[in-house]
Amino acid sequence: MRLATLDDGTPDGRLVVVSSGGERCLYAGPRWPGLLAAIEDWAVAEADLRNIATRLENGEGIALDPDRLCAPLPRTWQWLDGSAFLTHARLMEVAFATDPIPHDRPLMYQGMSDRFLGPTEDARFPGAEHGIDFEGEFAVVVDHVPMGTTADEAMRHIKLVLQVNDWSLRAHAVPEMKTGFGFILAKPACSVAPFAVTPDALGEGWHDGRVCLDLQIDWNGQRFGSANGREMSVGFHDLVAHAALTRDLAAGTIVGSGTVANEGYAEVGSSCISERRAIEIIAGGKPDTPFMSLGDRVRMEAVDAAGHAPFGAIDQRVVGPGN
Amino acid sequence: MRLATLDDGTPDGRLVVVSSGGERCLYAGPRWPGLLAAIEDWAVAEADLRNIATRLENGEGIALDPDRLCAPLPRTWQWLDGSAFLTHARLMEVAFATDPIPHDRPLMYQGMSDRFLGPTEDARFPGAEHGIDFEGEFAVVVDHVPMGTTADEAMRHIKLVLQVNDWSLRAHAVPEMKTGFGFILAKPACSVAPFAVTPDALGEGWHDGRVCLDLQIDWNGQRFGSANGREMSVGFHDLVAHAALTRDLAAGTIVGSGTVANEGYAEVGSSCISERRAIEIIAGGKPDTPFMSLGDRVRMEAVDAAGHAPFGAIDQRVVGPGN
Repeated sequence: MRLATLDDGTPDGRLVVVSSGGERCLYAGPRWPGLLAAIEDWAVAEADLRNIATRLENGEGIALDPDRLCAPLPRTWQWLDGSAFLTHARLMEVAFATDPIPHDRPLMYQGMSDRFLGPTEDARFPGAEHGIDFEGEFAVVVDHVPMGTTADEAMRHIKLVLQVNDWSLRAHAVPEMKTGFGFILAKPACSVAPFAVTPDALGEGWHDGRVCLDLQIDWNGQRFGSANGREMSVGFHDLVAHAALTRDLAAGTIVGSGTVANEGYAEVGSSCISERRAIEIIAGGKPDTPFMSLGDRVRMEAVDAAGHAPFGAIDQRVVGPGN
Repeated sequence: MRLATLDDGTPDGRLVVVSSGGERCLYAGPRWPGLLAAIEDWAVAEADLRNIATRLENGEGIALDPDRLCAPLPRTWQWLDGSAFLTHARLMEVAFATDPIPHDRPLMYQGMSDRFLGPTEDARFPGAEHGIDFEGEFAVVVDHVPMGTTADEAMRHIKLVLQVNDWSLRAHAVPEMKTGFGFILAKPACSVAPFAVTPDALGEGWHDGRVCLDLQIDWNGQRFGSANGREMSVGFHDLVAHAALTRDLAAGTIVGSGTVANEGYAEVGSSCISERRAIEIIAGGKPDTPFMSLGDRVRMEAVDAAGHAPFGAIDQRVVGPGN
């Protein structure tokens, strides 16, 4: 089952169920005005929504207007982003010239969740001098997770999978890491691909708590990377259990994988500019690729072996503060 | 004007305006069911709520039931906690045996905001071995703050002031700081004193973006500290402007001061156990005071020179996961 949110002028938007081809939709109805309401009562909502999905497969539905698509959850109570691709973590230590980070526990920061940009919305930043970078990653949405939930149990709390661009401002990343307090200025609002997908609908693309799809990233029309999500050092269920060690996780919490990266980066490229700069530093002593300029575009689309894109595409432009 | 939230079984509770003596209240009415709804449309809400406050001063109102009081905002979209008392920051470097943190920008982390405990609610933790500590501090609630807002402008976005216990699990603090990613396990849900207070209602207790009140803290009935909030190295308006440098702040964002601490800590004591332990290390080479045990109580109440407590008191018990 795939879900999306249409812009209706409200902060949470209006939830729709989307046909498997992505061309038609049906409103989830008044009981589930937005996805946040649905995930807070998922056991009941899921049954309703799957009934609507069946109607869609039987040919019902209205045309889905791609220009009205928001992030599936335009806002939620919590965004916890991991950094579970060790290839990425090691390269970022080169990019940032920071000490090696201990990896005895999953890396995770809490980022802003009051606003997620839609898939084609302009991404507005204070200026290119902040070091604008994209980060292609995957994420999951959980229902309520009690404190102390194990990783095995956590798997059952993963209700939806997302594809995310975790926008980063690199000029602030190292100074903020050095405080030990994590990222505020370095992590403005993320963007999210249009469709939230139940794990079962990913088929072989969902395995052992990992999204085993190539994340194709194009920067200004040039292929930048197509790393696969399967190389997470821990699964999403492990990340969820880690986060829940000392707190309940509110329904609607989104947990991110961190930037997708593969050991074979020489072949598949990278999912963020900073990582490519690290590879350039290793190869030639200095970075060659600049960060993004205002007006640049980035496109991100995870595809399976048949070329299907279950999450749809993020395709957006970077703009300055006046836009 | 003072506001409070009564538990009505919903996640956001029910907003009331409280009489200046704190013994009576009136419902804010159906347009402002909870404080989050009011802060999202504050210009309109404030006028309505101040009219209700006038009716209270004229003798209207029902008895305020202290047992029904939640946190003024039981959940909100964002919690950004600073560390603006340099005395605290320096002592924590001793407590944690960490390198000095650069202070060229305000320290700030994003913590969980999907749940704030009420003033007398039990604080539930996975166990005493996690190093349970309280942190007495102040915080402000802002309406929508656009990206790039200056500190002067930020002052006008500060609508309400809170008194907070930023619960901390010290066993996780240093490992999480060493990742550079900030606190997840080390920072479970905070507790909040019952009354949200407009800055004007604090009188001389609000000056230059600081809460100039003694924060009296009692641990198991023994006075532990009474540091004054005026020694913040930057004001709340500076913290708000810092946070808004690269993002809009959603209405309802809470920005915290960090643990209240004074240069004269020998006289006034501390607002968290970890800081007292640092003072013990400086004096005698090792910490003597243990962290909290299950069953312990902590009470926090900021008082003015006349002994009035504008925020009311936090008075709560630490319990284990089975409770």
